[in-house]
Amino acid sequence: MLIFYHANHLAHDPVILHRPDHPHSVVYYSEVARRGAIIHDAVVAAGLGSIQPPQDFGLPPIVEVHRHDMVAFLQTAHARFVAETGQAVALPETFSLGSRPRHKPVSVWGLLGYYCFDVGSPILAGTWEAAYWSAQTAVTAAAAVHNGERTAYALCRPPGHHAAADMFGGFCYLNNTAIASQWLVEKGQRIAILDLDYHHGNGTQEIFYGRADVLTCSIHADPLHEYPFYWGFADEYGIGAGENHNFNFPLPLGSAEPAYMVTLDIALRRIRAFVPDCLVISFGADTLAGDPVGGFKLTVESYGRIAAQIAALDLPMVVIQEGGYLLSQLGNCIVSFLRGLEAG
Amino acid sequence: MLIFYHANHLAHDPVILHRPDHPHSVVYYSEVARRGAIIHDAVVAAGLGSIQPPQDFGLPPIVEVHRHDMVAFLQTAHARFVAETGQAVALPETFSLGSRPRHKPVSVWGLLGYYCFDVGSPILAGTWEAAYWSAQTAVTAAAAVHNGERTAYALCRPPGHHAAADMFGGFCYLNNTAIASQWLVEKGQRIAILDLDYHHGNGTQEIFYGRADVLTCSIHADPLHEYPFYWGFADEYGIGAGENHNFNFPLPLGSAEPAYMVTLDIALRRIRAFVPDCLVISFGADTLAGDPVGGFKLTVESYGRIAAQIAALDLPMVVIQEGGYLLSQLGNCIVSFLRGLEAG
Repeated sequence: MLIFYHANHLAHDPVILHRPDHPHSVVYYSEVARRGAIIHDAVVAAGLGSIQPPQDFGLPPIVEVHRHDMVAFLQTAHARFVAETGQAVALPETFSLGSRPRHKPVSVWGLLGYYCFDVGSPILAGTWEAAYWSAQTAVTAAAAVHNGERTAYALCRPPGHHAAADMFGGFCYLNNTAIASQWLVEKGQRIAILDLDYHHGNGTQEIFYGRADVLTCSIHADPLHEYPFYWGFADEYGIGAGENHNFNFPLPLGSAEPAYMVTLDIALRRIRAFVPDCLVISFGADTLAGDPVGGFKLTVESYGRIAAQIAALDLPMVVIQEGGYLLSQLGNCIVSFLRGLEAG
Repeated sequence: MLIFYHANHLAHDPVILHRPDHPHSVVYYSEVARRGAIIHDAVVAAGLGSIQPPQDFGLPPIVEVHRHDMVAFLQTAHARFVAETGQAVALPETFSLGSRPRHKPVSVWGLLGYYCFDVGSPILAGTWEAAYWSAQTAVTAAAAVHNGERTAYALCRPPGHHAAADMFGGFCYLNNTAIASQWLVEKGQRIAILDLDYHHGNGTQEIFYGRADVLTCSIHADPLHEYPFYWGFADEYGIGAGENHNFNFPLPLGSAEPAYMVTLDIALRRIRAFVPDCLVISFGADTLAGDPVGGFKLTVESYGRIAAQIAALDLPMVVIQEGGYLLSQLGNCIVSFLRGLEAG
């Protein structure tokens, strides 16, 4: 298995915002740079394959998925924010609730709440650098599979699946999974996406919602009770040409492996019926029992069995890292999943 | 002049959230309970009129303007939040950006970001109590004018003009101005609303946007550069039956009395042409030079001259208190404005 990783993710480390006495602290501190280092060390120790830096594909694959204006904003937001406010951490305070405003804001405060939908996604000095290389890591893994590799793992950080064409949030800035998938589509491949993160991949869904050439399936916590709250319901099937090309499988909080495996089986049947050339997996380990952000009850061993089921599809696979926040078990979960894919 | 005030506004005092080291602190600490006490003491000292407690008109005038579901949420949100999260201050973290979701959330976190559009409007234990009596204060002032009083002043706190039918934010929970106006409409009166707060009264605009029986005019800082960022542009004229019954007058940051008076004159001509039975004024003193939330350059004396211009309309008037955050001058601004109305 080829594994791709770029140390520039360290440039984005919102741990500095952690304030235990602050009501928002729970959102700030989970998606920290240590996550990337922990996963890196675990896959090295497990001897899962050679670890390589990503190639630089530049902006083109990013702007195939995200709107130019949001990309330009992400590139410049921190510098503008510092210049306009004198503060170091750009977080929106006012949000464009309801229909998008007719006038696009020009102030940095207005733009923040125009593009960003939560308070968990600060823009720091190194955020663009980290998000850019996270996306390149995903495209490089996709390219490896396109060039004949059977399975490639993109150790992406920050994650991406909550970022839509012109919205970001949920610790995500650029949608690595969507960028890798779209890159493969442009190479002529028919792509299915399977999102296994604890949270609904609302960004990925939105990006491909009107399209029939990419199938999106997501197994996640019921948004009636969990983030991202406003997207991820079972009756969101896609629209127009994309109708019946989006399938959500919300599960109750507290779900454990038996219910998960039954649901996975249904999702895999959807994927098999679509007859894709390649499977792109948004993998989050925040479905583990005890994850501080999650609420499912999978075990480290569950990931091996889940992976074995997926491997039975017998498809080339690009695995993109999304969430997973129980740092003491994070490496074990990823290794269990990747080993399961290879063994399958 | 009759003045209405209820000390229950003290139950809502977000000053407890002030943390100078926190990036959000600037939004939290401005709309504090001291504001109400300061204005109260200033109007008493000025001998502007007798101060009376509001009558209790109950929920009916409130739910004529706001959706029942949001009112029910505001009544129960704090208790639910404490029960579900163990935290004392309910603030949204995730916001329903873009079109309103098809499924209304059921979790308190989901509901917070469904109804609330910023991080400046915490729900504390006493927030509903304060907002409820703030609305009753406005209705009582409207009733006094309906019963023959020439001018009534509702010393409302928290303010209201950013609250829409099913959204709240901007320190506002219930739209006192809209509730008082709608109460008068139901008594058969034709109402014009003049919003003089530094910030666009987006809630008031939204509530009456499709209606021809209420004229809404607002003079405020250009939303391209100021809160609420997404609403308040000059080309928002109303819709359907309400077309040409909404007029926004955004002014550049730094505007002073000369530009303000020219704009006021245009707004007053719109109001005169509408031939209302009664004028409801959303009055904010955050247009004062040096206001920590504002950016205009009016003086204490400006308010007297603005009021004199308005008084020349020769209409019964209900004055509803909105913003104003320079505590050392707040009482003087209100007294200057109310004296100007009476002298005019």
